[in-house]
Amino acid sequence: MKLKAKYIDMDSGEITVLLHADDCQEMGIAEQDRVRVKHESSTVTAIVQTTDTYIARGEIGLLGRAFNYIGPEAGELLDVVPTGKPESIDYIRKKMDGQQLTRDEIHTLVNDISSRSLSSVELASYITALHINGMNLRETADLTMAMVETGETIKFDRSPVFDFHSVGGVPGNKVTLLVVPIVAAAGLLIPKTSSRAISSAAGTADIVETFAKVDFSANELKHIAETVGGIMAWGGGLNLAPADDVIIKVEYPLGIDPHAQLLASVMSKKKAVGADFLLVDIPMGNGTKVPTMDMAKNYARDFIDLGERLGIRVECAITYGGQPVGRAIGPKLEAREAIAVLEGKESPNSLVEKAISLSGIILEMGGIPGGEQKAHDLLSSGKALAKFREIVAAQGGRADIKSSDFEPGKFAFDLPAKKSGYVSAINNKQLVRIARAAGAPKDKGAGVYIHMKEGSKVDEGQSVMTVYADNDAKLQEAISLCRKLSPISTEGMVLARVPGFKGLRV
Amino acid sequence: MKLKAKYIDMDSGEITVLLHADDCQEMGIAEQDRVRVKHESSTVTAIVQTTDTYIARGEIGLLGRAFNYIGPEAGELLDVVPTGKPESIDYIRKKMDGQQLTRDEIHTLVNDISSRSLSSVELASYITALHINGMNLRETADLTMAMVETGETIKFDRSPVFDFHSVGGVPGNKVTLLVVPIVAAAGLLIPKTSSRAISSAAGTADIVETFAKVDFSANELKHIAETVGGIMAWGGGLNLAPADDVIIKVEYPLGIDPHAQLLASVMSKKKAVGADFLLVDIPMGNGTKVPTMDMAKNYARDFIDLGERLGIRVECAITYGGQPVGRAIGPKLEAREAIAVLEGKESPNSLVEKAISLSGIILEMGGIPGGEQKAHDLLSSGKALAKFREIVAAQGGRADIKSSDFEPGKFAFDLPAKKSGYVSAINNKQLVRIARAAGAPKDKGAGVYIHMKEGSKVDEGQSVMTVYADNDAKLQEAISLCRKLSPISTEGMVLARVPGFKGLRV
Repeated sequence: MKLKAKYIDMDSGEITVLLHADDCQEMGIAEQDRVRVKHESSTVTAIVQTTDTYIARGEIGLLGRAFNYIGPEAGELLDVVPTGKPESIDYIRKKMDGQQLTRDEIHTLVNDISSRSLSSVELASYITALHINGMNLRETADLTMAMVETGETIKFDRSPVFDFHSVGGVPGNKVTLLVVPIVAAAGLLIPKTSSRAISSAAGTADIVETFAKVDFSANELKHIAETVGGIMAWGGGLNLAPADDVIIKVEYPLGIDPHAQLLASVMSKKKAVGADFLLVDIPMGNGTKVPTMDMAKNYARDFIDLGERLGIRVECAITYGGQPVGRAIGPKLEAREAIAVLEGKESPNSLVEKAISLSGIILEMGGIPGGEQKAHDLLSSGKALAKFREIVAAQGGRADIKSSDFEPGKFAFDLPAKKSGYVSAINNKQLVRIARAAGAPKDKGAGVYIHMKEGSKVDEGQSVMTVYADNDAKLQEAISLCRKLSPISTEGMVLARVPGFKGLRV
Repeated sequence: MKLKAKYIDMDSGEITVLLHADDCQEMGIAEQDRVRVKHESSTVTAIVQTTDTYIARGEIGLLGRAFNYIGPEAGELLDVVPTGKPESIDYIRKKMDGQQLTRDEIHTLVNDISSRSLSSVELASYITALHINGMNLRETADLTMAMVETGETIKFDRSPVFDFHSVGGVPGNKVTLLVVPIVAAAGLLIPKTSSRAISSAAGTADIVETFAKVDFSANELKHIAETVGGIMAWGGGLNLAPADDVIIKVEYPLGIDPHAQLLASVMSKKKAVGADFLLVDIPMGNGTKVPTMDMAKNYARDFIDLGERLGIRVECAITYGGQPVGRAIGPKLEAREAIAVLEGKESPNSLVEKAISLSGIILEMGGIPGGEQKAHDLLSSGKALAKFREIVAAQGGRADIKSSDFEPGKFAFDLPAKKSGYVSAINNKQLVRIARAAGAPKDKGAGVYIHMKEGSKVDEGQSVMTVYADNDAKLQEAISLCRKLSPISTEGMVLARVPGFKGLRV
């Protein structure tokens, strides 16, 4: 059928065209079927949406992505022919039926995902089937490699390449800002890419961009990392394993992250930058992605085994994630806290300890004996700070960066303890909700600073944490959330009294 | 946040609003999150799509459905507040995790489905989880009742109410056109609703609308059925169990129809019209929905057990579906063939036999002994034809309708047998593809007429079937499909020679 092109200045996750319902019936196709659209020498396969108002009979509406592929002038006639579903649909069915997928099937599927050839309905079905029926290690390795091969890859001139990843789920985990400069100060190459927050209060990229550029091309990243030994870049701008971005768009609304997909998502990005050695931080505890030790050990085993299949030597550190790492949550607050550690202004605490331990492991993977002591020395001697400033300058930030440069939001609120006693529980998820209500990660000064950690003694009315915001309206929202929730609970030392008898019997 | 209303003359399956990406970030929400939109006294919860071109900052684009709910003037300021996901998402997660859903959970879920409160991503996840993990009988009954209660219901003044359903999957199954008049001629009330073709060459509603009106309100349907004893209406216009229509939109692109959903889909429509007795036709054989006898018996058991829980007395007939019922496939061709049977112009064949057997079972369910003989008598005496004409007239058709009124498409092609022998196989699915390529069900004269059934003797070059189309272009498409496929295979009587020894040994 010949249809007149009409550009629609809007985009959907997939390659979509809008057709009039009567034209669809004429062609014997329905909503969600596919058509091949041809214009001169370019062709695109698009998913059909039907309408009987927005598009007239004889017209075809091309949404942004579909338009870019074939680029007609408005009103030009395009050749539109019904076409079948991609094979990938059969492979999704196979996974629904609990079968293993072959290497070729997985490659076809990932290729269709990254080229936006699957509809969100099909993607949601894939992710649900994967969540329920899983993938074995061989399939997961094939999935990872398919994700690598459908995206950009970076090849460094120096080797080996070291990398670090935190599974996430614990607020305030700004440890990357310390690990990268310590490891680079030891002379190892660590080109670290990070993500922005999806549901957290601040991803590493959100923190770093408060003081440096994070969005680089593959060539820029290579140049910076090779010159100064490390980088803290945003991975999202690099087109590494692009299928992942497409998949996240359906994982997020469903609130699921199938195990095999999580593994492949992490490892594909490491493989794409050519990592030889990788340390994975697995924060474990209430309110993280990994609530129990058994689960953490399984994650560790899977990362290590998958690494073996991919030619990456992986070690894992299971860390305590039951409460925030350090005291600051939110972009500027976290930047300030991390830099204060580099400056030696923070006394030993959970953040300092975690950074030294993790860096130490990476140094030992790199053949440096007594890694933890070495990491400690690099930090206390100021060499890590010097390296950090070098990296920041290479990323377009100020070479004299210091913690006192960072001012949190002007609007602040101190949350008082409801009663005297000890801090018995800190609720990670509630802290994140409050920090986000205050404006994090978008408002850089927004967030939460905790004065009391678990076990701290506290008097009624004493401030347990301060909420910061860049504007008053959001501060008020965060305050009302603080009042509704119990992000920091205090109890007397006796948590509950369990009587040994049920009272006197009459 | 206050945003200016902008109407978008387009619709999506769900209730959708378009927001500028920066406003979303400002509110701390992402694509696929939800907002509550308020205008004067009306409020709607909508799923967010983001854009940075089509909608300016400070604007909110309301797609058709969302607009209808709150109906602002263009440019009016609306109150937009982020809101959480519906509880239904938790129940979908529960089903993913293989758990049973309670009655209340199922009701909430179905309510959200029928009110279009779930996104297509969420619906696809539900259907996939249901396909994999299933539902037990109690859940399926709760699902059915929830689907009934979220739609319209019809209460007849006469009782009992008889009904009939065919699971489908066999082409040419125009048996409803015979069962309804035979049963009504016996004095039983049979208000039959049918669907249009989704992937078949002709649904009953597609056939009936070649000679009568099929789209009625609940009141019209009630009046016609009570006046003449039967009706052959399109169910889709009645808003019976509307959740089903929403679900089909995601089942279709995924090519799945979870067992519990299939059962609930059929039974909810029967319950909604107050059926007391129901006969279910289960065509069994290659290329149908039910390929084996074991599977057919399981289906039958499930329909009967579910009926018991719903207060519907169900019987099932497992019928032969390995080849088309009768010889005609396509709207007008099927109408002509069915009416010729009523006129007594067809000698006994698979269609006549099937119609008499099924009608006979319904008559016996209604307390009429010797049902099959009675059905035969009603047909051969012309009483069924008279009743058919009465029903057609009540549905706005001609009271003197006859088979010779129906002319198939003007463009025809005879498919010759490739070799002499016997018809060894008729491929249901290929016949449907060819009929659809020829224009069915949209082009009413399009379709296929089979001259040879399985076991028929045929000479090379003899016509095994005729393809009809309403225009030449589609006929050519159907012809090229005929040449590519083998809808009707012929073999010599010896199908294969199996030698008893492997040749002389040297």
